Amino acid sequence: MNNKIRVGIVGYGNLGKGVELALKQNNDFVLKGIFTRRDTSLIKTNSKIIHISEILNYKDEIDVMILCGGSANDLPEQCPILAACFNTIDAYDNHSKIPDYFNMVDDIAKESNKVSLISIGWDPGLFSINRLLAQAILPKGQDYTFWGEGVSQGHSEAIRKINGVKYAVQYTIPIKDAIEKARSGNNPHLKTREKHKRTCYVVPFDFDHTDAIEKEIKTMPDYFLDYDTTVHFITEEDFVKNHSKMPHGGFVISTDINENNHRQKMEFNLSLDNNPEFTASVLVAFARGVYRLALEGKKGAFSIFDIPLSYISPKSGKELRKELL
Amino acid sequence: MNNKIRVGIVGYGNLGKGVELALKQNNDFVLKGIFTRRDTSLIKTNSKIIHISEILNYKDEIDVMILCGGSANDLPEQCPILAACFNTIDAYDNHSKIPDYFNMVDDIAKESNKVSLISIGWDPGLFSINRLLAQAILPKGQDYTFWGEGVSQGHSEAIRKINGVKYAVQYTIPIKDAIEKARSGNNPHLKTREKHKRTCYVVPFDFDHTDAIEKEIKTMPDYFLDYDTTVHFITEEDFVKNHSKMPHGGFVISTDINENNHRQKMEFNLSLDNNPEFTASVLVAFARGVYRLALEGKKGAFSIFDIPLSYISPKSGKELRKELL
Repeated sequence: MNNKIRVGIVGYGNLGKGVELALKQNNDFVLKGIFTRRDTSLIKTNSKIIHISEILNYKDEIDVMILCGGSANDLPEQCPILAACFNTIDAYDNHSKIPDYFNMVDDIAKESNKVSLISIGWDPGLFSINRLLAQAILPKGQDYTFWGEGVSQGHSEAIRKINGVKYAVQYTIPIKDAIEKARSGNNPHLKTREKHKRTCYVVPFDFDHTDAIEKEIKTMPDYFLDYDTTVHFITEEDFVKNHSKMPHGGFVISTDINENNHRQKMEFNLSLDNNPEFTASVLVAFARGVYRLALEGKKGAFSIFDIPLSYISPKSGKELRKELL
Repeated sequence: MNNKIRVGIVGYGNLGKGVELALKQNNDFVLKGIFTRRDTSLIKTNSKIIHISEILNYKDEIDVMILCGGSANDLPEQCPILAACFNTIDAYDNHSKIPDYFNMVDDIAKESNKVSLISIGWDPGLFSINRLLAQAILPKGQDYTFWGEGVSQGHSEAIRKINGVKYAVQYTIPIKDAIEKARSGNNPHLKTREKHKRTCYVVPFDFDHTDAIEKEIKTMPDYFLDYDTTVHFITEEDFVKNHSKMPHGGFVISTDINENNHRQKMEFNLSLDNNPEFTASVLVAFARGVYRLALEGKKGAFSIFDIPLSYISPKSGKELRKELL
């Protein structure tokens, strides 16, 4: 490719900052601007900061808009507006709502003749690919996804909403014994409680009222009730010092025992010091795919399953076959 | 898909038998015949066995021909002939010659308006995908491929050609310390000798002449000279009992430490009781991709990098997004 891919970043939280960082490592891109709802004068960066109200003025200057907002509120609101004018990519990760989100974006992008690649990252994303490979290659086998050890933003937020909680972080921890059972190839049935445990670090406003908080956490349906949950109450100082990082990771393990009694195991795993920075790196690589689909005249919504992986590499097909095949 | 994908198998060695087995687990395929150079009356199977001399009579009855011959001699001879009449898929694995093989097949398949998917399996294949992902997502990182513990057919054959050798098998063994160094994220430089060792089990015709055989193995350039190689001389009985299996596997490990000093690690690994049966399972899954590319009117040679992974699943895009994304 002779021309650099012109991108914009929408949202300058952890993910947006990660994309800005990742773009520096990929010289086939040029960052045209970071679009934010905040007061642009308060943001420190060497990149060009633009208020989001001006975004539609950049229709002809940006090949791919990288949407870095949250899945709960930002993306469902922003993506429909932006997909009407730009090729987009996002990391929409609300698994149960992905089909609806895809359909909504698909309608808009087909109308606007643009490409929208949704739900890119590691889960959904790289883990999804590995689940697909597992089921296509070993159709009678069993696949297991484990998450962590790492910070779950959703669970941390759920705790923060509890009365009396000042700060909170929740670590999802895969249970080693379950991972080994999954790897064993005996296709074990693993219950929710057997796969992961949850450990919470909470800064209360008042250390005299921790019992009520702990009870509310441990009995919260969906989030904590079905798990062995441990709650530690700590000081703000401890919290800032020891719980400000965003590690994560996980495992997709697939096994099969075939008719000849041969055990075959596939495993993909990630160990990440910084979750949003890694997701951002995946977004940037797949932004190449958006660009190439758009160049081909494709339109509508796409997922990671729809993109030939050659499209995410800056290398030519010839180079890829020679160096990586 | 309403119609079953009609496939043929060319070659009935370990790989062809593996494809026959894998097809039984995938009910969207129908096996129309196994084509062989051997005397068809001597082959035991419930599938239809056809002499390869009749293969061109089946032009209209087969959607995808699954080529299960060896890379050294069979595929370079068979693929050009068959790509002129059939959509094909193969597991061509002579890495250094892949670009030439691809170009040769590409010319023929473009002329015949057919699709030929080459070099499908786990390496080349799934490992190649993971190297591509690693380099696209972590462009400043480092990726390492380890093979084993498993039987290398090429190395075993090299030993068998030595004077005085009756049977031989060679195990490629990745060195644990090197795997841990690769996982560490410190981007170590690992020499050939540091990554793998080689262990050989040899049945000699005469146990009095093992010294010469051992010396010839250990000094063989490319194959053994650059490795720590151990040679065990064993009886034919021991060989048949303990060294008739075909296990294999390996690791693709990719790490990066970014500007914020965050370490990110991706790893894909396989542990296979039976190498050809797993390669066969990959071939069958990707035969769906060949069929779909052909339905779209595509023509020419393709590699694993060129196929959207949704094409290898029997599930619809809608099902994939709902269940696996």
